[in-house]
Amino acid sequence: MALKLYDLAAAAPERRFSPYCWRTKMALTHKGLGFETVPWRFTEKDVIAFSGQPRVPVLVDGERVVSDSWTIATYLEDIYADRPSLFHGDGGRAATRFVNAWADGVLVGGIVRLIATDILANIDERDRAYFRKTREQRLGMSLEKLTADRDTQVLAFRKTLEPIRTVLATQPYLGGAEPAYADYAVFGCFQWSRCISRFALLLEDDPVWAWRDRLLSAFGGFASMAPAYAA
Amino acid sequence: MALKLYDLAAAAPERRFSPYCWRTKMALTHKGLGFETVPWRFTEKDVIAFSGQPRVPVLVDGERVVSDSWTIATYLEDIYADRPSLFHGDGGRAATRFVNAWADGVLVGGIVRLIATDILANIDERDRAYFRKTREQRLGMSLEKLTADRDTQVLAFRKTLEPIRTVLATQPYLGGAEPAYADYAVFGCFQWSRCISRFALLLEDDPVWAWRDRLLSAFGGFASMAPAYAA
Repeated sequence: MALKLYDLAAAAPERRFSPYCWRTKMALTHKGLGFETVPWRFTEKDVIAFSGQPRVPVLVDGERVVSDSWTIATYLEDIYADRPSLFHGDGGRAATRFVNAWADGVLVGGIVRLIATDILANIDERDRAYFRKTREQRLGMSLEKLTADRDTQVLAFRKTLEPIRTVLATQPYLGGAEPAYADYAVFGCFQWSRCISRFALLLEDDPVWAWRDRLLSAFGGFASMAPAYAA
Repeated sequence: MALKLYDLAAAAPERRFSPYCWRTKMALTHKGLGFETVPWRFTEKDVIAFSGQPRVPVLVDGERVVSDSWTIATYLEDIYADRPSLFHGDGGRAATRFVNAWADGVLVGGIVRLIATDILANIDERDRAYFRKTREQRLGMSLEKLTADRDTQVLAFRKTLEPIRTVLATQPYLGGAEPAYADYAVFGCFQWSRCISRFALLLEDDPVWAWRDRLLSAFGGFASMAPAYAA
């Protein structure tokens, strides 16, 4: 039986934009595991109540239910140990946690300030009040105020990507010679933006752009085939 | 023959403060390799000219000369492969590069803005003009202006440590259950500050403080025995 993934969807159900779900989809694809996705909206808490928590990704693997993108990654690595590795050893798993934590804070936190109004415009109508309320509470201002000066804010955002550029100057992927979960943890954040917003997060001459392009092309162009707005 | 490390020294030759040299000293100690250090000042370029470049750390291992803290770490891992591992596999090595790059940018860049005047006050008199000139050029302002509002700046600096805290909430070291090079890459930056400045970089209730304490105590308290100013 194929694995089943509850995957955050926009108003258009084929538009999938959660950075965390993208991490999981890349990890599943890396492992060569077939999976089907179930489009899920922010307010459909009842639909995933069986997972014991209110957020996606939720992965259903037969009798097993796993939530939280990091937990899912370690689950896949351990249960499907004979498949291509996501971490390449315990040292990789431990250090990738830092990359993941950095992406959660610096990328998710940085990007939401640039695209929050685009998210609002594209999500299902039933989700809008929920999204506005929770995000404005968390971020301390209206979504419109948050993104008002994004053309300036993005310059500072791009500077925070410097550690990625430093690594890419000496190896093609954060995971080394080949992509690994460290790449997907970061890539998921860029794919989030790309799938829900037209805003130009990256410049074409940025090495991060070229790296993202390589990941879009990976696995037969899996991520590039998803409906997206930005280049 | 013991390994020899050229190690940046302050006016007091026993006061060693380079973040990069600290990484190397922790890595050597982790590997259980005996080494002696040679105190070196910023302006003694001629003394390390044999290394083909102008910065420390420079490690001399018999006939071999290795410089740059990352290159030294990978050298030690490869040549002393039978000793305790710094990376625990290729995945660890690849992902640790990101931690190292993050520390180089966010920590070194953040900390120098807080302690530059303390460095100036403590380094050898012969080094002061060199240090001021190169750093003011790089940072675009006088050292005094740079650190003038450090009591405010440190609040923003502490926020940038959030990825460390996220990781430490689930594992005792960045390297996992035991310290690894990811820890030393970051620890070296805190030890730099601690050894050359009285400025309170960390608060005692910060999990990063407790983690730093564990590393100060590691290997029989190796790092804690170095002359330092701060707690």
